[in-house]
Amino acid sequence: MAIKRSKVSVIGSGFTGATTALMMAQKELGDVVLVDIPDMEDPTKGKALDMLEASPVQGFDASIIGTANYEDTKDSDLVIITAGIARKPGMSRDDLVNTNAKIMKSVTKEIVNYSPDTYIVVLTNPVDAMTYTVFKESGLPKERVIGQSGVLDTARFRTFVAQELNLSVKDVTGFVLGGHGDDMVPLIRYSYAGGIPLEKLISKDRLDAIVERTRKGGGEIVGLLGNGSAYYAPAASLTVMAEAILKDQRRVLPSIAYLEGEYGYSDIYLGVPTVLGGKGIEEIIELDLTEDEKAALDKSADSVKNVLNVLE
Amino acid sequence: MAIKRSKVSVIGSGFTGATTALMMAQKELGDVVLVDIPDMEDPTKGKALDMLEASPVQGFDASIIGTANYEDTKDSDLVIITAGIARKPGMSRDDLVNTNAKIMKSVTKEIVNYSPDTYIVVLTNPVDAMTYTVFKESGLPKERVIGQSGVLDTARFRTFVAQELNLSVKDVTGFVLGGHGDDMVPLIRYSYAGGIPLEKLISKDRLDAIVERTRKGGGEIVGLLGNGSAYYAPAASLTVMAEAILKDQRRVLPSIAYLEGEYGYSDIYLGVPTVLGGKGIEEIIELDLTEDEKAALDKSADSVKNVLNVLE
Amino acid sequence: MAIKRSKVSVIGSGFTGATTALMMAQKELGDVVLVDIPDMEDPTKGKALDMLEASPVQGFDASIIGTANYEDTKDSDLVIITAGIARKPGMSRDDLVNTNAKIMKSVTKEIVNYSPDTYIVVLTNPVDAMTYTVFKESGLPKERVIGQSGVLDTARFRTFVAQELNLSVKDVTGFVLGGHGDDMVPLIRYSYAGGIPLEKLISKDRLDAIVERTRKGGGEIVGLLGNGSAYYAPAASLTVMAEAILKDQRRVLPSIAYLEGEYGYSDIYLGVPTVLGGKGIEEIIELDLTEDEKAALDKSADSVKNVLNVLE
Amino acid sequence: MAIKRSKVSVIGSGFTGATTALMMAQKELGDVVLVDIPDMEDPTKGKALDMLEASPVQGFDASIIGTANYEDTKDSDLVIITAGIARKPGMSRDDLVNTNAKIMKSVTKEIVNYSPDTYIVVLTNPVDAMTYTVFKESGLPKERVIGQSGVLDTARFRTFVAQELNLSVKDVTGFVLGGHGDDMVPLIRYSYAGGIPLEKLISKDRLDAIVERTRKGGGEIVGLLGNGSAYYAPAASLTVMAEAILKDQRRVLPSIAYLEGEYGYSDIYLGVPTVLGGKGIEEIIELDLTEDEKAALDKSADSVKNVLNVLE
Repeated sequence: MAIKRSKVSVIGSGFTGATTALMMAQKELGDVVLVDIPDMEDPTKGKALDMLEASPVQGFDASIIGTANYEDTKDSDLVIITAGIARKPGMSRDDLVNTNAKIMKSVTKEIVNYSPDTYIVVLTNPVDAMTYTVFKESGLPKERVIGQSGVLDTARFRTFVAQELNLSVKDVTGFVLGGHGDDMVPLIRYSYAGGIPLEKLISKDRLDAIVERTRKGGGEIVGLLGNGSAYYAPAASLTVMAEAILKDQRRVLPSIAYLEGEYGYSDIYLGVPTVLGGKGIEEIIELDLTEDEKAALDKSADSVKNVLNVLE
Repeated sequence: MAIKRSKVSVIGSGFTGATTALMMAQKELGDVVLVDIPDMEDPTKGKALDMLEASPVQGFDASIIGTANYEDTKDSDLVIITAGIARKPGMSRDDLVNTNAKIMKSVTKEIVNYSPDTYIVVLTNPVDAMTYTVFKESGLPKERVIGQSGVLDTARFRTFVAQELNLSVKDVTGFVLGGHGDDMVPLIRYSYAGGIPLEKLISKDRLDAIVERTRKGGGEIVGLLGNGSAYYAPAASLTVMAEAILKDQRRVLPSIAYLEGEYGYSDIYLGVPTVLGGKGIEEIIELDLTEDEKAALDKSADSVKNVLNVLE
Repeated sequence: MAIKRSKVSVIGSGFTGATTALMMAQKELGDVVLVDIPDMEDPTKGKALDMLEASPVQGFDASIIGTANYEDTKDSDLVIITAGIARKPGMSRDDLVNTNAKIMKSVTKEIVNYSPDTYIVVLTNPVDAMTYTVFKESGLPKERVIGQSGVLDTARFRTFVAQELNLSVKDVTGFVLGGHGDDMVPLIRYSYAGGIPLEKLISKDRLDAIVERTRKGGGEIVGLLGNGSAYYAPAASLTVMAEAILKDQRRVLPSIAYLEGEYGYSDIYLGVPTVLGGKGIEEIIELDLTEDEKAALDKSADSVKNVLNVLE
Repeated sequence: MAIKRSKVSVIGSGFTGATTALMMAQKELGDVVLVDIPDMEDPTKGKALDMLEASPVQGFDASIIGTANYEDTKDSDLVIITAGIARKPGMSRDDLVNTNAKIMKSVTKEIVNYSPDTYIVVLTNPVDAMTYTVFKESGLPKERVIGQSGVLDTARFRTFVAQELNLSVKDVTGFVLGGHGDDMVPLIRYSYAGGIPLEKLISKDRLDAIVERTRKGGGEIVGLLGNGSAYYAPAASLTVMAEAILKDQRRVLPSIAYLEGEYGYSDIYLGVPTVLGGKGIEEIIELDLTEDEKAALDKSADSVKNVLNVLE
C-alpha cells in the first residue's frame, strides 16, 4: 500500500476559510480542498491558485484547489467548516441561528456523503449550536465532531497577558470553559506566565480588564475592521486543532465537545478541556469547579440551550 | 549594547500588505509595523491585532502593530511598500502611473524621514517605474532600493511546471529577466526540474503555454477573484526578499535593480538576476543573452522607459 | 479508523543512525524506533531517551525508543539501515563486503518479518551492493528498496560551490550519477547557482578541484575526525529521502535504484535521478549522456558489479 | 550600515558542543564557530564541515567553522561554554572543580579578549560554580553571564510527565529552583499538564517517583550510555536560552543567575526563574516559597557554596 498524503477540506472560502487553508498548507498537514457555493466558485479557485503559487517560495508541498463541487472533497481525512453568514443589521438572532443551521445541514450532508469516516471541526457561529447541528446531521461518532472556541479565546487572553507583562506569548497560558465570547468562563487560577499563576503577577483589576477584553475580543476586531470579523487568529486556532488530530498528538486543548454527563450536562455541545489526537476528542478532562465557576458554566450552558431551542 | 529584534514596516494594509506582515511575523524576521492612511487606521489596527492574536497559537514571537503614524516606523531595518491604487475602469494608464508615483513620493518621504538608513522593497505597480520613483525620492544608495517582480513570476512559472510534471515545487526552478507580467523575459534554458533543463522534459508547445500563462498570471487571479488581485504569492515573494536581506543570506533572486550600464542599460530599474544579502543588492549577475533574448529585454526596457516618460 | 502517526525505524544506533533518528523526530515525520544489537541495547536506549528529553524544548511530538528487539519495529512505514562495520586497518575490501552483507541479510530478515509492507532506505557501505543485498533478501518490490549516496554527494558539492561563490546553499544545485565517492559521475552541466550553469561562474580548474574534493568528501571527514566517519550530512540526506516518501512529495532526488534496462544496465543497483514519493521510487529519469559521461557511468557500474561478485 | 548575521561561538566540540552548534545552525540563529583545544582542532573542523554539508539538505543558511584559534570567535554576539572534563573514576570532586575552574578561566579570558561585549551561557559542571567563575573572570555585567540547568531539568521532568499521562510534551510544563540534579528544588505546585496542576492528575507516589527520576536524570543517561553523558537535551536547552537572547524574546526560563539579595542570597549563582531577552537576564522573578521549599533551596545554596569554597 502506497503512502498517501492526508487530505483536508475547508468549507467556506471567506477570509477565515482561506487563511485556514493557507496555514494548513504551510504546515504541510495535507492536500487542501477549499470549497464554496457555485456563485463563489471562481473567487475560491482564485484564492486557492494564489496560495499554491506561494508554495515554491514558502517551500511547502501541498496541492490546494478551489471548488464548488463536493466530489472534490472525497475521502477527506478532516473537514473544517467555516461557512455561514454573519449577523446583519436588522436580522434577529433566531434568523441567524436558523439560517446557519440550514447551511450546516446541507454542508454536512455533502461532507459525509463523500467522506463518511472523517473528522469535522466547526467554526461557524453560534458555534456550540452549529457543532450540535453538524453532529446530529452527520451521524458521525461524537468524538469526530468538534467545535472551536476555546483555542481562540485563550489565544486572545494570552496575547493580552503577554502584552501586560511584556513577556513572550510562548510562556503565557490561559484556560477557559463554556461558550464562546460573552459566555466564556475563564479559569484564571489555571492561567500562568512561566508557570506562575497570573494572580501573583497581575492585579485583580487588570486581570478583570483582560478577561473582559477577551470576552469582547471578537467584537473588538469587528469594531476595528468596520466590515467583517477576525480571521487570522481563528484560522490559526482551527489549524492547531486539525494538526493535533492529523498528527495524532494528544494535545490538551479546549474544544466544544458533546457531553453525556460530564460536568453534569447532557445532549449539549459545550467548551471543555479535551485531549485531541488521532481519534478526535480522545478524552474530556473533568475538573472540580468552585461554586462561582459552576454557576458561570451553568449560565453558559443555559445560553447554549436557548440557542438550541431556537432550532426547529 | 543589548541585542534588539529587527524591525520591519509594511506600507499599505490591503490584502498583500497584511499577508506580508503575517508571513514576516511567522518567520520571526522582526517586529512588524503595518501602516496605512488615517482613513484606514482602524482596519489596519484590527488586522494587526488579529495577527498578533494568532501568535500564541502559531508560536511566533513578534510585535505587530497597525498605525497611520509614520513615527511608529522609526528605525525600521527594512520597509516594504505595497501601497497604491489599482487601475480602475476608465482610468488611463498615465493616470494610474502618476497617482501611484505621487503615493510613492509621499510614502518615501515619510519612510526615510524616520529611517534614513533603511532598505526598501517595492511592490506597487507599475513596479519598475515605482521603484525608480522611490529610489529618486529616497536619496538612498541604489543597492538599498529594490523592486519585486521576478520572484513572483518565477513562483508562478514553477507552480505550473510542477503541475505539468507532477513533481514537488521544491525541485522546479525558473528564470526571468525584464519587466513584470507581459514584459517578462523568461529564460527557459535556465529553468529546470530536478536540475534537468525543462526543454528536455516538456514539449515546446506546452512550455510556450506555461510561459504565456505565467505572463498572464496576475490577470488570471484578477479574473478569478473578480474583485481584487493576487496577494498570497506576492506576499510570499516580498517575504523571501526581505528574509534574504535581514538574515544576510546572499540568495540569488531576481530583483528589479537600478542599472548603470549592466546589460547595456542605464538610469533604469529593470528585472535582473541579483545577489540579495545584508547590503541589499550585493551583486547584479550579468549573463550572455541570445539575440532573441536581448531583443525581448530591449522591448521590456523600452516599455519601462515609456512609463518613466509618463512621470512628470 | 483513527489517524495514526507514521512509524520509522532506524537500524544502527551509531552516530549516523542516532542523528537520523533525531532529525526525523525534529521534523515530526513519525514515531522513531532506534535499533541495535543486544550488546548495544543500553547505549541505544540512552541515546533515544536523551533525544526524547530534547523534545519539550525543541517542540516536537514524537515517541523515540531505543531497543534491541525487532518486535518493537512492528508495522514500520519506513526503515532506514545504517548498521554495519567500517573498514578497519588490515581488513580486505572483500571481508568488509561479506561482513556487511551478512549484517544486511540478518537485519532485513528481521525488518520484513515485522513490517512486510515497508520501505527500506540503505546507507551501509558499499552502499550499491548492500542495497542490492537488502533488495534480494527482502522480497520487497524494487521501488521499495532504495540506497542513499547522491543526496549526500550533491550536498557536499553544493556546500563547496556555495563557499566558492559565497552564495546561499539554497540556490546551488548539483547532479550526480553512478556510485558513491570515487565512482561518482558528476554532471556539471546540470549543476547551477541561481539557475546559472556553474561552468559560466567557476573556472574549469576550480570546478575540477571541487568535483575532486566532493569525490573524496567522505575521506576528508574521516581524515579530520581521526576516528570515525561523517554523520551529520549523511543523516540529513537519509531524512530528506524518508520525508519525500512519508509525505508523498514526488521530490526529484538521486537514489540508488534497481535498474532493469535503464541506462543500459540490468540487475544492478546504481545511482540515478529518481522521483521519490509515496510509492517509493516512482520514476527513474533517463537522461541522454555524452560519451564521456556514459563511459564514466560504465566504469561506475563495473565497480559496483565487482563488489557484487565478491558476494558469495 | 549593512545588516550582519549574528555570530555565536561554542566552546568545546564534544557531543554537547557539536550538537549545540548543529541546533543553533538549524534555527539560523547565526554563524557558528566551534572551538576546541589545538589537540582537537582537526576533529573540530571535521564536525563543523560535516554539519555544514548538511545545510543544503536541511535548508539552513549558516557558516559553521571549527577552530582552535580564539581569534575566529572575534565579535561573537553570544558564546556557549561546554568545555571541561567529566569526573573520572578516582578523581575527587575537588579536583574536578579546580580543573574545570582553570579551564573556565582560561576560556573566559580568550572569549572576552575577542568579544568584550558578549553574552556567555555556561553548561560545564558543577555549573553553578563554573558560571560564578566565568562571571568573575569575565568582568562582564552579571546579566550577561548565565548558567544552564533548569531548562534541562524541566525538559526531563516534562518528558516523564508526558509519558505518564500519555500527552503531548507541548502541553506539559515544569518548574525548578536551585542547583542542578540532586540539588534541584522542584516546585510541583507550579507544574501543569494543559494548565491543570499535576497534583490533580498524578498520584503523589508517582509524582515523587518522577521527581526522583528527574533528579537522577543525568545519571540515568550516563548509566545507559556507559561511556559519556547526555548531549541532545543539554544542547537543546542551551539553544533555547541562546535563542531567547539572540531574538530578544523575553522568555520566562529558569537560569542560573547571579543573586544580590534575591531569595535572600548574595554573591552566588543559583537556579531561579528569569526573563531572558536581548539584555540577557532581564529580570529575576521572586516567588513566595513555602517553608519546605525555602529549606530545600537553602540546602541547594549551601551545596553551591561548598563547591565555591573549594575554588582557591
